[in-house]
Amino acid sequence: MFSFQINSNCSSTRARVGCLNTPHGDVHTPQFMPVGTLGTVKGVSPDQLLKTGSEMILANTYHLHLQPGEEIVHEAGGLHKFMGWDQPILTDSGGYQVFSLGKLNKIDDEGVEFKNPRDGSHLKLTPEIAIQIQMSLGSDIAMAFDQCPPYPATFNDVEEACLRTHNWLERSIAIHNKSDQALFGIIQGGCYPELREESARVVSSFNLPGIAIGGVSVGEPSDQINHIVRKVAPLLPEGIPRYLMGIGSLRELAIAVSNGIDLFDCVMPTRLGRHGTALVSGERWNLRNATFRNDHKPLDETCLCETCTNHTRAYLHHLIRSEELLGLTLLSVHNISHLIRFTRAMGRAIEDGCFSEDFAPWQKDSIAHYTW
Amino acid sequence: MFSFQINSNCSSTRARVGCLNTPHGDVHTPQFMPVGTLGTVKGVSPDQLLKTGSEMILANTYHLHLQPGEEIVHEAGGLHKFMGWDQPILTDSGGYQVFSLGKLNKIDDEGVEFKNPRDGSHLKLTPEIAIQIQMSLGSDIAMAFDQCPPYPATFNDVEEACLRTHNWLERSIAIHNKSDQALFGIIQGGCYPELREESARVVSSFNLPGIAIGGVSVGEPSDQINHIVRKVAPLLPEGIPRYLMGIGSLRELAIAVSNGIDLFDCVMPTRLGRHGTALVSGERWNLRNATFRNDHKPLDETCLCETCTNHTRAYLHHLIRSEELLGLTLLSVHNISHLIRFTRAMGRAIEDGCFSEDFAPWQKDSIAHYTW
Repeated sequence: MFSFQINSNCSSTRARVGCLNTPHGDVHTPQFMPVGTLGTVKGVSPDQLLKTGSEMILANTYHLHLQPGEEIVHEAGGLHKFMGWDQPILTDSGGYQVFSLGKLNKIDDEGVEFKNPRDGSHLKLTPEIAIQIQMSLGSDIAMAFDQCPPYPATFNDVEEACLRTHNWLERSIAIHNKSDQALFGIIQGGCYPELREESARVVSSFNLPGIAIGGVSVGEPSDQINHIVRKVAPLLPEGIPRYLMGIGSLRELAIAVSNGIDLFDCVMPTRLGRHGTALVSGERWNLRNATFRNDHKPLDETCLCETCTNHTRAYLHHLIRSEELLGLTLLSVHNISHLIRFTRAMGRAIEDGCFSEDFAPWQKDSIAHYTW
Repeated sequence: MFSFQINSNCSSTRARVGCLNTPHGDVHTPQFMPVGTLGTVKGVSPDQLLKTGSEMILANTYHLHLQPGEEIVHEAGGLHKFMGWDQPILTDSGGYQVFSLGKLNKIDDEGVEFKNPRDGSHLKLTPEIAIQIQMSLGSDIAMAFDQCPPYPATFNDVEEACLRTHNWLERSIAIHNKSDQALFGIIQGGCYPELREESARVVSSFNLPGIAIGGVSVGEPSDQINHIVRKVAPLLPEGIPRYLMGIGSLRELAIAVSNGIDLFDCVMPTRLGRHGTALVSGERWNLRNATFRNDHKPLDETCLCETCTNHTRAYLHHLIRSEELLGLTLLSVHNISHLIRFTRAMGRAIEDGCFSEDFAPWQKDSIAHYTW
């Protein structure tokens, strides 16, 4: 029910073009997943999302566990039916959220106890519970429960989190028994190369259908992320999809892809959209800016998304200035489309042998300009 | 460029089915117009709006004058281009808003001076300015500038507002010179039958391509609105579209149509949507209500709109509870679709001779049930 084919390898980097088959359709890699935290990519309808070219979205186990609860989603026939999205869905394990959002009461080898920020009640996540929730949600890809240490953290703390993450991975695998759902493992290790290496070795040893690099984008500088990716990616098995969690800047995407990463997710495009910011040609434009007031050109003249084919910068400026909901929707639609377009362009460039780590196809003097 | 044909008359009421031809397409009457105050129907994209079956929207001259200003819209090629809506648009005159929203500084026969609520600056609207703005916006139908008295108001105050409205209508007609835009007049008169009659007589005398009943839904009881409609509608010329401003409840729509009204607008469907309320079978459902938590039926099982064909009550409940933008969008889409469906059903029933003032086609024992 799951398979991953590598269809093309880059001639000059470790990048590859592949296809991940899931019960809800194919995911062409490299691929960016918009984040649909609560069973909705904020402000974007499933129909609009499909038109961005998105093939798979990420939903948050932690958030859906709190609201509406996985029983409701399961009753509805699973998350795809519940949210009206008939394409692949990946659920994270809740590990990242429980450590970054929850008020922690207790962490031990068993799992994590925390306070529900919605009503103050006490909740518990263990590898077993996190996997049970994801099986109830019915995503195509589930993530093993992990401990995501903050940044900065001491070597000892990160080492402990690694050991626990590896133990929790074993328990996640043991409890997981849903044949139409793939379980991916997560590598931790913070910014400590030797811990990352060890974690990559351990997680790779489980013969999983996919592996993620977690614990990045937790506050560390961007060059640390790139450093980790360069270090870890080459250690991962060749024939399975590799997923770099929580990363969405074009620069980091290109570096990660050139090191053999296939999948990405990030709240950035929708969060920026909700703040009135558009991604255009590698830049961030604040549409609130008065320079757009009477700029009647399409948002991005080279973009074919719903927003850019129908709406101008002046209109978007007007919507954002007027705090109209549609402005947030249209910018989110464009920003997602922009990232999808970027990953597709990378794929094309890899196939054609003109991909490089500094990939910036919107630049007219780029040899890969035709892929944009 | 404008014409109005009556294609069918009701056998038992004054209702009729017609078609208004405009430069941006046909509007089949009876027709409900969603309100796109600031050049956007709140939370709904033009594409989503088209799928509701809406044929014409209303935009607010007052709001667009304040933001972004009609020069920007004109520069963009007019409001249709600015907002990406290639169907008919009607603009109101700003009269209602200036009297209900603005801080009035001065009203006299010349016009109205008021404070811009956005920046405190002093602004002025006169019939000439209101028409100039609407010509710049480039709507298909412009409304004459009127004085809309509040409710309650004394006979003398309403009489004065009527005289001024009639004078302003003359001046609106005198300044209007845009052949691809129709100018409609507005009847005032508050809840005073003799003033309404006189206003209907005066406004009808101008041989306009359309007439509106204004100054309703300003706080008076519902039966007063119906009383005014019953009184005024029969006095209006037969061969032109008649528009009842600001009305959107199904009950009042059916009564108005049975008295020969053709056009309606109301913020109600989108405002209710933004408050988590859905219109279903003549009822208002608060989707926040816990009874919907695990109700996995489509929102309205008989509705073919984007929301009802793709989403359940449980999902909408979840979105509303989670304060997700998509919930507001999906409920607005459904509520607009519901009103469009209702006006279409009225049209069908009029053609088939089964329309009546108490039209409620969702009821299984209604002889017009098949029109739903």
